[in-house]
Amino acid sequence: MTSVSEIIEQRNWQVVEAPFNAGKLSHLETIFTIGNGFLGLRGTFEEGYPGEMVSTLAHGIFNHAEGELVPDLVNLPNPLAVKITVNGVEFSMERGKGQMLGYRRVLDLRTACLTREVIWHNGVDAIVKLRFERFASLKNPHLVAQRISVRALLGTPIIRFNSRVDGTQNNEGVHHWEEMQTGGEGDLIFLNRVTTQSRYRIAVASLHQFNPMLKAELTLTAGQPSLAYQTSLAVDSEVALIKWSAIHTNRDSDDPLHAAQMTLKAAQQQGYESSYQAHVEEWATYWHDSDIQIEGDETAQRAVRFCTYHLLIAAPRDDDRVSIGAKTLSGPGYKGHVFWDTELFMVPMLTLTQPKIARNLLMYRYHNLEGARHKAQKSGFAGAMFPWESTDTGEETTPQWTHPLPDGTRIRIWTGDNEQHISTDIAYAVMQYWHWTGDDEFFLKYGAEIVLDTAVFWGSRVEYNADQGRYELTNQIGPDEYHENVNNSVFTNRMTQWHLQTAITVHDWLLREHPTAGAGLIERLGINTQQLTRWRDIIARMYLPKDPQTGLLEQFEGFFKLDRIDISHWQPRVANLDAVLGHERTQEVMVIKQADIVMLMALLGDQFGSRAEQEHHWTFYYPLVDHGSSLSPSIHAWIAARLDHMADAYKLFHYAANIDLEDLKGNIRDGIHAAAAGGVWQALVFGFAGLNLDEMGNLRLMPKLPSHWRSVRFRVWCKGQQRQIVIGDETSTNP
Amino acid sequence: MTSVSEIIEQRNWQVVEAPFNAGKLSHLETIFTIGNGFLGLRGTFEEGYPGEMVSTLAHGIFNHAEGELVPDLVNLPNPLAVKITVNGVEFSMERGKGQMLGYRRVLDLRTACLTREVIWHNGVDAIVKLRFERFASLKNPHLVAQRISVRALLGTPIIRFNSRVDGTQNNEGVHHWEEMQTGGEGDLIFLNRVTTQSRYRIAVASLHQFNPMLKAELTLTAGQPSLAYQTSLAVDSEVALIKWSAIHTNRDSDDPLHAAQMTLKAAQQQGYESSYQAHVEEWATYWHDSDIQIEGDETAQRAVRFCTYHLLIAAPRDDDRVSIGAKTLSGPGYKGHVFWDTELFMVPMLTLTQPKIARNLLMYRYHNLEGARHKAQKSGFAGAMFPWESTDTGEETTPQWTHPLPDGTRIRIWTGDNEQHISTDIAYAVMQYWHWTGDDEFFLKYGAEIVLDTAVFWGSRVEYNADQGRYELTNQIGPDEYHENVNNSVFTNRMTQWHLQTAITVHDWLLREHPTAGAGLIERLGINTQQLTRWRDIIARMYLPKDPQTGLLEQFEGFFKLDRIDISHWQPRVANLDAVLGHERTQEVMVIKQADIVMLMALLGDQFGSRAEQEHHWTFYYPLVDHGSSLSPSIHAWIAARLDHMADAYKLFHYAANIDLEDLKGNIRDGIHAAAAGGVWQALVFGFAGLNLDEMGNLRLMPKLPSHWRSVRFRVWCKGQQRQIVIGDETSTNP
Repeated sequence: MTSVSEIIEQRNWQVVEAPFNAGKLSHLETIFTIGNGFLGLRGTFEEGYPGEMVSTLAHGIFNHAEGELVPDLVNLPNPLAVKITVNGVEFSMERGKGQMLGYRRVLDLRTACLTREVIWHNGVDAIVKLRFERFASLKNPHLVAQRISVRALLGTPIIRFNSRVDGTQNNEGVHHWEEMQTGGEGDLIFLNRVTTQSRYRIAVASLHQFNPMLKAELTLTAGQPSLAYQTSLAVDSEVALIKWSAIHTNRDSDDPLHAAQMTLKAAQQQGYESSYQAHVEEWATYWHDSDIQIEGDETAQRAVRFCTYHLLIAAPRDDDRVSIGAKTLSGPGYKGHVFWDTELFMVPMLTLTQPKIARNLLMYRYHNLEGARHKAQKSGFAGAMFPWESTDTGEETTPQWTHPLPDGTRIRIWTGDNEQHISTDIAYAVMQYWHWTGDDEFFLKYGAEIVLDTAVFWGSRVEYNADQGRYELTNQIGPDEYHENVNNSVFTNRMTQWHLQTAITVHDWLLREHPTAGAGLIERLGINTQQLTRWRDIIARMYLPKDPQTGLLEQFEGFFKLDRIDISHWQPRVANLDAVLGHERTQEVMVIKQADIVMLMALLGDQFGSRAEQEHHWTFYYPLVDHGSSLSPSIHAWIAARLDHMADAYKLFHYAANIDLEDLKGNIRDGIHAAAAGGVWQALVFGFAGLNLDEMGNLRLMPKLPSHWRSVRFRVWCKGQQRQIVIGDETSTNP
Repeated sequence: MTSVSEIIEQRNWQVVEAPFNAGKLSHLETIFTIGNGFLGLRGTFEEGYPGEMVSTLAHGIFNHAEGELVPDLVNLPNPLAVKITVNGVEFSMERGKGQMLGYRRVLDLRTACLTREVIWHNGVDAIVKLRFERFASLKNPHLVAQRISVRALLGTPIIRFNSRVDGTQNNEGVHHWEEMQTGGEGDLIFLNRVTTQSRYRIAVASLHQFNPMLKAELTLTAGQPSLAYQTSLAVDSEVALIKWSAIHTNRDSDDPLHAAQMTLKAAQQQGYESSYQAHVEEWATYWHDSDIQIEGDETAQRAVRFCTYHLLIAAPRDDDRVSIGAKTLSGPGYKGHVFWDTELFMVPMLTLTQPKIARNLLMYRYHNLEGARHKAQKSGFAGAMFPWESTDTGEETTPQWTHPLPDGTRIRIWTGDNEQHISTDIAYAVMQYWHWTGDDEFFLKYGAEIVLDTAVFWGSRVEYNADQGRYELTNQIGPDEYHENVNNSVFTNRMTQWHLQTAITVHDWLLREHPTAGAGLIERLGINTQQLTRWRDIIARMYLPKDPQTGLLEQFEGFFKLDRIDISHWQPRVANLDAVLGHERTQEVMVIKQADIVMLMALLGDQFGSRAEQEHHWTFYYPLVDHGSSLSPSIHAWIAARLDHMADAYKLFHYAANIDLEDLKGNIRDGIHAAAAGGVWQALVFGFAGLNLDEMGNLRLMPKLPSHWRSVRFRVWCKGQQRQIVIGDETSTNP
């Protein structure tokens, strides 16, 4: 370390735990998750800890266990497990087991590498310094590397490593595996398994490098193969175990075990240092494209990087048949299911900074169109109706009921039935991707089909109210999920209008620019003149409830008649209002879970109305918002910035950016709030920087930085070119 | 909140806990201590919590309980206790007792006011929002004010407050009180007590304001008087209990109970709001004088303010017979005893920013000169020999033995016998105070006597080594307490030299400037020509061990022969090296607990030697330092800045500034590291700002700010005038 600016630079890339904070065990497991877009490994300890929640997740590996309501993203065997004994005393950070003399854990966001250093007295005759290093290779996403070193500081202890592939994990009590093979030989151990219902095959294998003079002891307990290495240490000397682990599935290879062995062999040949370097270089390209640099606000700088990190480690780089669940690969929340969170909160950041990944995520929806068509058909509609919760099949996987409450009753979950705006959210993300990338090839082959077939759905879904001579949508759930099964949600109705208008534009573009392929698609989807006429009629006569006195759009019919309560008295609160008021009562009060009308302002920009009209709606709706969803603050920050409410904008942005670092929702145990992370990026880029790409393809900036920020820098891809955006005093930035 | 800069400004004045962090209970109790220079009240909860450590301390109230090794600063009855029931269910933040729906605790450093907001479901039929506010009045330090409000958010609950003066507290199992009277009437409850050995009398009384229509229920359990108030709440309505508490002792009043009643009556007449305003205005004057503003580093800004806050709440404003213990009034650590921490770490900040308080602290030593003379006499020396640990009598109160270890053995504690530099540290603080303030009146009447009589002690203490023809000091403990009972500690020998030289200067000044009073003092202390001749001889021939080859001063005789170990391998470590290597082994290794030779560079400045010589010593000694004392990092930061090692300076400064906020020593349960807090101020002002007052009385600055800091502003008093110091770009500062 040679200069203060290097210290600061490093600090702004690191999340540090020191000293050990046992009370935040679950929190930090989520925070310290590593991953590479294929795998996510929670920050649990190699040696285990009471109450820990070990979680190893890979995109796409779902299983619907018997007796369960819905499928789970399956918890894989844990490859990280290594127990260590120091002169026969098992190393543990638990109180009363030996004595922990020092501790520091660092997640380096730049290198996606987690290290832990512990100075530990075995309570008898030795003090050792243990250093644990782990990374999930970004170069080969099937590879996880660990380096564990032990140095004798006092005494001459015998050190024993007992390394396992730990197949005892399950999904919070639900078992998903059939064992096929527990094996090992030499420095290798492995498990070969298949999921009970979906029949995904997986191999988890670990290869070890240790002092080549010492022979390992292999133990093949079913589901828990282990290898033990032992050596004695002179004082002030050190020993290191390198553990390579490979995870392959039949999604990437016909013979996952063989593939795993090949991955391990290649890794061993490359060596730890070189493999680490390749991983870091890969991450450098990630950060080159996706990093946002903020001068003048260290807290914001680190929090924004933390958000970006968690989006990147969850983003599938090489797989277009999976998507990012609401809690990424960092925990069991929502069982790995994919919601609108992906398209409206995470995809925009990827569209602008990692367009290839954004394309993968949209392709996931394309590949699952059949599931969406199936859902539409089952529901009595035409076209494609995307599921509210999606897994590997594209079928609706929202549970219909909650688990029984203490009194034995269950609550009906309506989102799978009635939160239908998801189809439009996906179409919006496709259009946004196309608009920014100009990726006509994608759009022609895949994107247009998504946009059009979901439009076909809406054409069949919309209801004509003959009495009023208008089109309506009854029984909907808008973004404000506090109010279920409402009629004429402004968000849904207006976005449907937008969707059909967009579909007509797409239809015309296809026929004009790609007469053959375009006409083929249109015909295949059964879109005809009659259909287009109906769409135009819907667009013209879609009902948007509005108070004629005030000119305010009414979030849904009857919203203005609800009971008003002063939510400022309900602060500070972690629990959602529906959890505290009760499900029934919540529906009767004029409190909004999250950006709804305000979300519409975000998506439609000035198409929503003039700035004065936006301000008018903001003034009314903002005080009613409970931010009961982690998706809410960032969108409000964005619109607050647009409308020059900078104090609110900064407060909301700061909240959103720290939602997980500070566990502001109190539920980070379940995993990262990925939509909040994506929303933070949008609040910053679309809100504070005011970045926009107009219809003519010109980039426009309307910067409104918080007053103490000196500069903001980032890069975006636009029509195949990367553009650097610098806002603020260029002379004050570091070289 | 109207602007981003106001949000940032507020954030830089606040320490926030949200959500509730039960795992950091003890940590946050210390952090959230409030006080006013007379009282310190730990941040425990009104209603109690399992494992809490309730602590109410007042300066000067020591007691030596039978069977104990040394006196304790006595834990007073807790005036804050209030239990609350909501429809019969007792409010508690424990898991499983009702449900906590939201939580935020804020210590506002600017107003020294602690607030807690909790949204709580009683588990049955009501949700309430509780708001707790407390401050220890700076206007009347005998007064503590609380305001507790409860708002019904759901249901129409009956709210019952049960307010107590809780006399069940003790000092970690040691009891110090005899009960005199448990009483109450109307809205008043009180305890009247006396300490068992020291016979301090104390009264703790609480007066309540509640709905005047409701009658309170008084219960007089011995040692625990209580008053209960009860009312029912309509939904969306609020009730508040104001609790005034007064603490008086026979140190401030002959009739503490009467005084307490007068304090309460006056407070009630003034009213809560007005009393709070008066308190805040008083704090504004504190911050005006003592705040350091840092632009460009929010983390440092908040941490420095936190340090300043804890020094100010512990600093006796109106009492010159008490001093600040090593752990302030925030916890039981070191039993409230006063060490060199006060004079060399805390007093400099006060000398420059709150000179009246610095004077009080120095007067504490003056008043305790008799104890110091007694110690010298008992030890066979002349003059005044200050105790290493000091309480209310000035007698040595360092325990001679540790408590028995698990194996039954005890370790002899030698600091009370041999860490004799304390006398010079005090003389140094007196000289520094005189130098900066020009307070001749204090110096003539009190300060000179301290400096001279401790010089008399040294004159009698120094040993003449006839073989070598030099003066020596054997059997010493320098700042590096890892090495006990060493011979010729450079720090102690060199400071003794400085001390005698200073005494001669003072002697000459007295005779020249104040021939009558000065001569009287000199005569009274028995200082004669023979004495002065001896002092001059000691100055000339004091032995400072030095390696002739390298020119390096040897920390003490034999230090260069100790075993060298590489302490970099022992990082990160919380425990001290002597705790892990064992007491014996630690003495044999070349590892330094804290700034020792480097402390000498701090105190003597360029009198230590040229910058090249300082650099030479830094290079050798810095890598050997373990920072086993919280006193170490800040002093190293200061000298690192002086020597242009800015990265080290910043790293050390950052560590010192966050030592308590982040519990980096792992022992904050015991109380604030006040010396670290004072050291941070010195690292900033003397190190980064390079402030100095030369012999001619000119202020000099040699700023070396960390590169990302844009400006630093603070005020210092110098010779009776307040001077504002601004370093950095003035144009970039806020108005």
